[in-house]
Amino acid sequence: MKIKVARCAGFCFGVKRAINIAESALKELKGRDRIYSFGAIIHNPQVVEELFKKGLRVINNLEKIKGGTVIISSHGAPLETVEDIKRKGIKLIDATCPFVKYAQNIVKDLKKDGYEIIIVGDSAHPEVKALKSIAGKNKKSKKIGVISQTTQNKENYINEIKKILNRDFSEVKIFNTICNDTSKRQSATRRLLEDCDLMIVIGGKNSANTKRLWQICKESGVDSFHVETEPEVNKNWFNGKKRVGITSGASTPDSMVKKIIERIRRF
Amino acid sequence: MKIKVARCAGFCFGVKRAINIAESALKELKGRDRIYSFGAIIHNPQVVEELFKKGLRVINNLEKIKGGTVIISSHGAPLETVEDIKRKGIKLIDATCPFVKYAQNIVKDLKKDGYEIIIVGDSAHPEVKALKSIAGKNKKSKKIGVISQTTQNKENYINEIKKILNRDFSEVKIFNTICNDTSKRQSATRRLLEDCDLMIVIGGKNSANTKRLWQICKESGVDSFHVETEPEVNKNWFNGKKRVGITSGASTPDSMVKKIIERIRRF
Repeated sequence: MKIKVARCAGFCFGVKRAINIAESALKELKGRDRIYSFGAIIHNPQVVEELFKKGLRVINNLEKIKGGTVIISSHGAPLETVEDIKRKGIKLIDATCPFVKYAQNIVKDLKKDGYEIIIVGDSAHPEVKALKSIAGKNKKSKKIGVISQTTQNKENYINEIKKILNRDFSEVKIFNTICNDTSKRQSATRRLLEDCDLMIVIGGKNSANTKRLWQICKESGVDSFHVETEPEVNKNWFNGKKRVGITSGASTPDSMVKKIIERIRRF
Repeated sequence: MKIKVARCAGFCFGVKRAINIAESALKELKGRDRIYSFGAIIHNPQVVEELFKKGLRVINNLEKIKGGTVIISSHGAPLETVEDIKRKGIKLIDATCPFVKYAQNIVKDLKKDGYEIIIVGDSAHPEVKALKSIAGKNKKSKKIGVISQTTQNKENYINEIKKILNRDFSEVKIFNTICNDTSKRQSATRRLLEDCDLMIVIGGKNSANTKRLWQICKESGVDSFHVETEPEVNKNWFNGKKRVGITSGASTPDSMVKKIIERIRRF
């Protein structure tokens, strides 16, 4: 049995950056100040657990928070949250991924210019919630601006755009806000699928980009499993399989990929 | 046999305006100055013939023109033509349709902002030739601006846009430059087709919007004929037909529609 790992494994730029920001803050402030992250700083429970051990507490609202430092997660935070933090005099560190920030700035411009804003993505995901809060109350318009969650897959995005084009518009501005890492990871996964009879997708069960990879794998018809940690990997999946592919999300540590490969090798 | 005429028959706004401009100029200048139109002022040979009798000469280049007045047709003219007219000290009257002008201004803005410009339309049509000359030499870019010939049909336009979305873009700006009259005339024709077993499309053989109407009629499966004048209407077309629809292009005079209906009634 051969094991092949997709190119582009390891943390993406925005995840690496957010972890570095959190670790620097923890080093600098630990013992002197309480440090919170607003939402999971990245969507990988094992990494969040490691940071918890170092002192980073995850919060989902600011109700009980009276002081200390709040780190905005890589996915960004709603406008109201940022305003609340400032109003309460809490120290703010912004770990929003620069590609998410780029999408946020597009939304600001579209709003200023009076466009109806359509965000293609998962409305329950923190990135989309933040974008929605910036877009504010939407009004219908014949001038339409369209952006995508940074971890969307391009085919889904284009299908949604096609629906919008059927509307009676005067202008449609479409921005490709799918980040480069997402596109590359999806392409690498697609290439790997051509040469595999089993695919293991490694990453947070709450990770949007990992879920997209798994969607692509399932749609290809190749047997595919999404796991977060090595104990989830089941020996039976490998019966009769000859070529196993491994792909992982933008917030999956290399160490986890290694652990899982070692476990598969032991079968 | 019943005859039904599509709503929205008669000249469109831009055609009416161009004819008025030409007639005013002819009234004012005739005998005192030579008056030319650069290209047919509208795409209806019978109307052009009427204006010829009143003194309007159609030219297709400026080579032999040394003085007088040149009227830019409703479809607009290439930048170089306008510059030539000015350089030669010839008087210029602009009868470009305001909706075509709107598309021209969008092209100017896109060019200024560094967009690759895609014009969806018939490259041999004077409107598109003028738009192309304003766009100038196109360079490939990930920022793409898309406009349509004002007389395009929306389905064709959207099909072309879909192809563009498959490209690797950072931004696509799509402008609906199909004029309102074109959309309304196409919708009225579609509605009429539902209730007809024969359709007569009246208008210039060189008229883009009339040709689009005819395309829509042919695609519907209803027997359809495109005529410019009443002698072209053939009695045999009406054998066994019960409900005849009449539709006409934006540059077709009401008088021609009436003449054709009278001829059909006589069968």
